[in-house]
Amino acid sequence: MDRLKKQIEFIAEIDKIKNIIRKTSLLDNSRKENSAEHSWHISVMAIILAEYSNNKIDLLKVIKMLLIHDLVEIDAEDTFLYASNRNDRFSEELQAAERVFGILPDDQKDEFINLWLEFEKKETDEAKFATVLDRLEPILQNYLTQGGTWKEFDIEYTKIINANKHIAEGSAEIWQYAQSILIDSVDKKYLRKD
Amino acid sequence: MDRLKKQIEFIAEIDKIKNIIRKTSLLDNSRKENSAEHSWHISVMAIILAEYSNNKIDLLKVIKMLLIHDLVEIDAEDTFLYASNRNDRFSEELQAAERVFGILPDDQKDEFINLWLEFEKKETDEAKFATVLDRLEPILQNYLTQGGTWKEFDIEYTKIINANKHIAEGSAEIWQYAQSILIDSVDKKYLRKD
Repeated sequence: MDRLKKQIEFIAEIDKIKNIIRKTSLLDNSRKENSAEHSWHISVMAIILAEYSNNKIDLLKVIKMLLIHDLVEIDAEDTFLYASNRNDRFSEELQAAERVFGILPDDQKDEFINLWLEFEKKETDEAKFATVLDRLEPILQNYLTQGGTWKEFDIEYTKIINANKHIAEGSAEIWQYAQSILIDSVDKKYLRKD
Repeated sequence: MDRLKKQIEFIAEIDKIKNIIRKTSLLDNSRKENSAEHSWHISVMAIILAEYSNNKIDLLKVIKMLLIHDLVEIDAEDTFLYASNRNDRFSEELQAAERVFGILPDDQKDEFINLWLEFEKKETDEAKFATVLDRLEPILQNYLTQGGTWKEFDIEYTKIINANKHIAEGSAEIWQYAQSILIDSVDKKYLRKD
């Protein structure tokens, strides 16, 4: 029962990401989204949009990555895509991954740390496609809430294009769609053209 | 693009389950959980606890079921496990499934309705194991919040055993563990013995 005890302890620990608040809002604008809701939403999106992946993917692996990719935030907190310190966070996040996934039995700790590292490195087809969903969700949220964090933090069109253009590495079709949304957002004044 | 448009419309529609509030609370007791968070949590649990399934399962199928099983609540709302009208809800939920999944392209509508029906019927190994997680989460939540909804709605031990004993059909080991928690809960006065 020692193995199951560790697994249950982990299951209880990860409840905390329901209190990690993101910058983006629910589509009804009632409140900001949390990281558990975000992880759920992009996992469903992975099922629906898998057909647009540039390359054949192991969908189960993609969904595993998406379900657990934000668990490091329990110790390291969420970093806004456009925050200036975003690239300095890796060592802090790795430490968080060691601590949080370290609650699990060793074999599962290894599996989860490897999934998290694979997602972070964005080199495999699965990690590239997982990133498509992780980036598409906030773009949709901002578009469907007439500007959302783009307006709130005064982020301009080119910055968004540059921060998201690697969506194309996972799905050329989704990147084409995302670009069409961004152009429409400029037309509709949800987004400032620089 | 008509196909992608339908898929994006569905992705936007399902944002609503972030506002469907369940009876059970977060482990820090700060607020009630919503159905998106619940769906996320039990999907992660499926990965971690898959080894305890009585039978070999297709884990991707289990996770798909868990991610979408509550989407009918957008139209039909959440039903408490111990509510007296719980068994009368099927036709209302089927209508909700037709409407919500009907936003998707036909092939995906069919896949999702079939996954939802399979989960509801609880006949396949995947549906039985998915049910293990769906039932285990609230038991853990109530145990770890010193009684939770058991105290709030004055539900007694035998009622909980009867409503959850089919966990054993998906996992004998998890049911054994769940029973040990319920007995401990009676000892600790989280739960009333009848």
